[in-house]
Amino acid sequence: MSLDQIKEFVEKNKEEYLETLFTLLRQKSISAQNIGMEETSAMLLKMLEDIGMDSRLIETDGHPVVYGEMMKEDNDFTLLIYGHYDVQPADPIDEWNSPPFEPTIRNGKIYCRGVGDNKGQLMAQILAVKSYQEVIGDLPINIKFVFEGEEESGSPNIAKFVSEHRDLLKADLVYTSDGPMHESGAPFVLLGVRGMLYVELNAKGSDWDNHSGNKGNIAPNPAWQLVDLLGTMKDDDGNILIEGFYDDLQKPTANEEELISTLPYDAEQVANQIGYKCFDMTREEYYRKLTLEPTLNIAGFHSGYGGEGAKTIIPSTAMVKMDMRLVIDQDPDDILEKFIKHVHKHAPGVLVVSHGSMKPSRTSPDLEVVKVVKEAVKEAYHEEPVLQPSLGGSLPDYVWTQILGVPSVIVPYANSDEANHSPNENLNVDNFFKGIICTCSVIRSLGE
Amino acid sequence: MSLDQIKEFVEKNKEEYLETLFTLLRQKSISAQNIGMEETSAMLLKMLEDIGMDSRLIETDGHPVVYGEMMKEDNDFTLLIYGHYDVQPADPIDEWNSPPFEPTIRNGKIYCRGVGDNKGQLMAQILAVKSYQEVIGDLPINIKFVFEGEEESGSPNIAKFVSEHRDLLKADLVYTSDGPMHESGAPFVLLGVRGMLYVELNAKGSDWDNHSGNKGNIAPNPAWQLVDLLGTMKDDDGNILIEGFYDDLQKPTANEEELISTLPYDAEQVANQIGYKCFDMTREEYYRKLTLEPTLNIAGFHSGYGGEGAKTIIPSTAMVKMDMRLVIDQDPDDILEKFIKHVHKHAPGVLVVSHGSMKPSRTSPDLEVVKVVKEAVKEAYHEEPVLQPSLGGSLPDYVWTQILGVPSVIVPYANSDEANHSPNENLNVDNFFKGIICTCSVIRSLGE
Repeated sequence: MSLDQIKEFVEKNKEEYLETLFTLLRQKSISAQNIGMEETSAMLLKMLEDIGMDSRLIETDGHPVVYGEMMKEDNDFTLLIYGHYDVQPADPIDEWNSPPFEPTIRNGKIYCRGVGDNKGQLMAQILAVKSYQEVIGDLPINIKFVFEGEEESGSPNIAKFVSEHRDLLKADLVYTSDGPMHESGAPFVLLGVRGMLYVELNAKGSDWDNHSGNKGNIAPNPAWQLVDLLGTMKDDDGNILIEGFYDDLQKPTANEEELISTLPYDAEQVANQIGYKCFDMTREEYYRKLTLEPTLNIAGFHSGYGGEGAKTIIPSTAMVKMDMRLVIDQDPDDILEKFIKHVHKHAPGVLVVSHGSMKPSRTSPDLEVVKVVKEAVKEAYHEEPVLQPSLGGSLPDYVWTQILGVPSVIVPYANSDEANHSPNENLNVDNFFKGIICTCSVIRSLGE
Repeated sequence: MSLDQIKEFVEKNKEEYLETLFTLLRQKSISAQNIGMEETSAMLLKMLEDIGMDSRLIETDGHPVVYGEMMKEDNDFTLLIYGHYDVQPADPIDEWNSPPFEPTIRNGKIYCRGVGDNKGQLMAQILAVKSYQEVIGDLPINIKFVFEGEEESGSPNIAKFVSEHRDLLKADLVYTSDGPMHESGAPFVLLGVRGMLYVELNAKGSDWDNHSGNKGNIAPNPAWQLVDLLGTMKDDDGNILIEGFYDDLQKPTANEEELISTLPYDAEQVANQIGYKCFDMTREEYYRKLTLEPTLNIAGFHSGYGGEGAKTIIPSTAMVKMDMRLVIDQDPDDILEKFIKHVHKHAPGVLVVSHGSMKPSRTSPDLEVVKVVKEAVKEAYHEEPVLQPSLGGSLPDYVWTQILGVPSVIVPYANSDEANHSPNENLNVDNFFKGIICTCSVIRSLGE
């Protein structure tokens, strides 16, 4: 079999394949707000059935997993492909140049919430299975699809799901296409992820907003309380001051430090991707901060008046949302405990709510199967993939490496300026089709 | 003349007087959002004409001043009564127990935005002039009404207005009824106000929100920038660290310290008024912080995600609204300059926008006219008024004491739990009617 046959077939079916993707994109599926989840899982199930997969919805304590399998022989090599059908909320909506849930093509890009993260990548995998069958015939390996509906909400039920379905999910390799390709445009093979812990801080002052003059200096100000509290969490150099935060952090190995110094890097490209002209990190600083160091991020801070002009109040409440990206072997449960302890010490009245967490993961670059994938990806893109020890973002990758006990690789298909989680999220039309080719290449190579 | 005649007349006309007030309350007049300002000034003008005042709208660079006068002889004692017809925005609207612009009486209180601040108090003065004429006949002094439409937006045009109309506004005393009475329920005679400076801080990071994982540690976070900046503005004891902030602050005089230690005080009452059970200041601390010390308040902090659940972004912008209450002789222009200098030093990219300012003011307690007012107030309420050197809040009182060069007293008519600037703003029905009596008492005493 030659990849060119697949390419030709995909080329011929472009319109139909785009339309299939658009159908899925138009269907909202915002897990954080429980919008459209049932409709989307049903739609996806139907799509798997349509390509001949033995499929079903598997209930969890949250949104269902859409599961599909196409089995040759139980003993053949089994590839488990993981993706997610939920998307981030679309706000701030007025910053979108086209409606967030109406896929719109401009300058070779599909703009839509969820197109890169993760519906376009997941659809590339589905259509790869379809294309492979139509062009070549039976797949050379077993394929299992696991599409969850809560990744954007921190995958609160995926670990339990995997624990409870070990036999069903038995596989030799887990393969995920999520997140963006390397800034240079080169393909990525990622061997792990940063973990995540999402918390919300709630401070309460008076029972109502007070007049900032008549009660100024008298009524407590919860916004100041959270500002002061946040001030205790970092030093001027950005080091995190939560006691014990770094205790379990693995120091980068010499190999990792070495790897980082050889990765392709263009500061201007990064500046363009993040939309920040003043960006000026060195290569080593960039990769170290992105893949080997944890973060302590303020994702939202809301208190008091935010409208036009002046409103002179002492707010009665203040709320901060934070996420921490954790690095192997930081355990989010342990970090949460330390975080709460820190809050209780510095601001006893402030309430900490956890909005989910995820452990970090790593897969060894020395495994044979990793080398096969890397070669298959190279063949699809005609370019050497960038092998990186960790993704900056988080995926529930540990459920495969730690719970299922299977190696796991992440091969993103989205362009690096996909703006996932942001207004005007997009996926290059070309990246969508190349994702189909790449999946076929991986299936073929693993079958050999 | 006896105040009892006035009381009797007011009692007889209760329903009509309430209806007049309700008409004004139902008419929205949110200066910060430019809602209903023209309609309200026209309505108020008509009301002054209806009680026989020589009235007109006087244009300013913002909303017009509603001016009315009732002159006996030019040389007679002239009382200038100042108030404002604009109100604060009503949000958070869902915390109101009845619609914010539909006056509703529950348990002896009128609930409505603006009922205490300042429409109910201003209306008590109008109806006092009406009642006095109907019961007694011609007023014994000249009366001038100045009702401005921008007090809740920091009175940006009142100083210019006063400068340009010195002759028209010529008076012997300025009298303002605004803010709440003393917590103990005793009447207040206030001899000054704290000044005010309102600023907005705008921080910008990337051109769009970034993914907190894929760009975590890489894209700048403007929320952290403002948290860090705010952290440089106060020490752990609440002292303001802006260089030179305290330079022009007058140390409290021995008399003021003495006065403070004798003022009525009940910590539990204060706790109830501000809606904060844990309040526990001493009398001296309370009055010192409220009347003799400046504030640095966060009125609003908004950045990033504030909805349900988790959204993992690095926000692209952050905005903080702050107001400072200034004490004699702090000059808001000077403080603004120092504030900007501080911001430029600690967070060079952050933009400072000023949303208006007001100078502090003081009138001497030794003036004969102050003693007359104090006695007249005592006669109306049958209770010794609390004489306080300054209001915690701000009014453009300096335009009278500094620009017009006339002494000024503030005699609030609202109950101390009026919740001005908050949801469920209210005015005791009884306070409304007592305000009418008190104004009549002051007019009579000044005429003697």
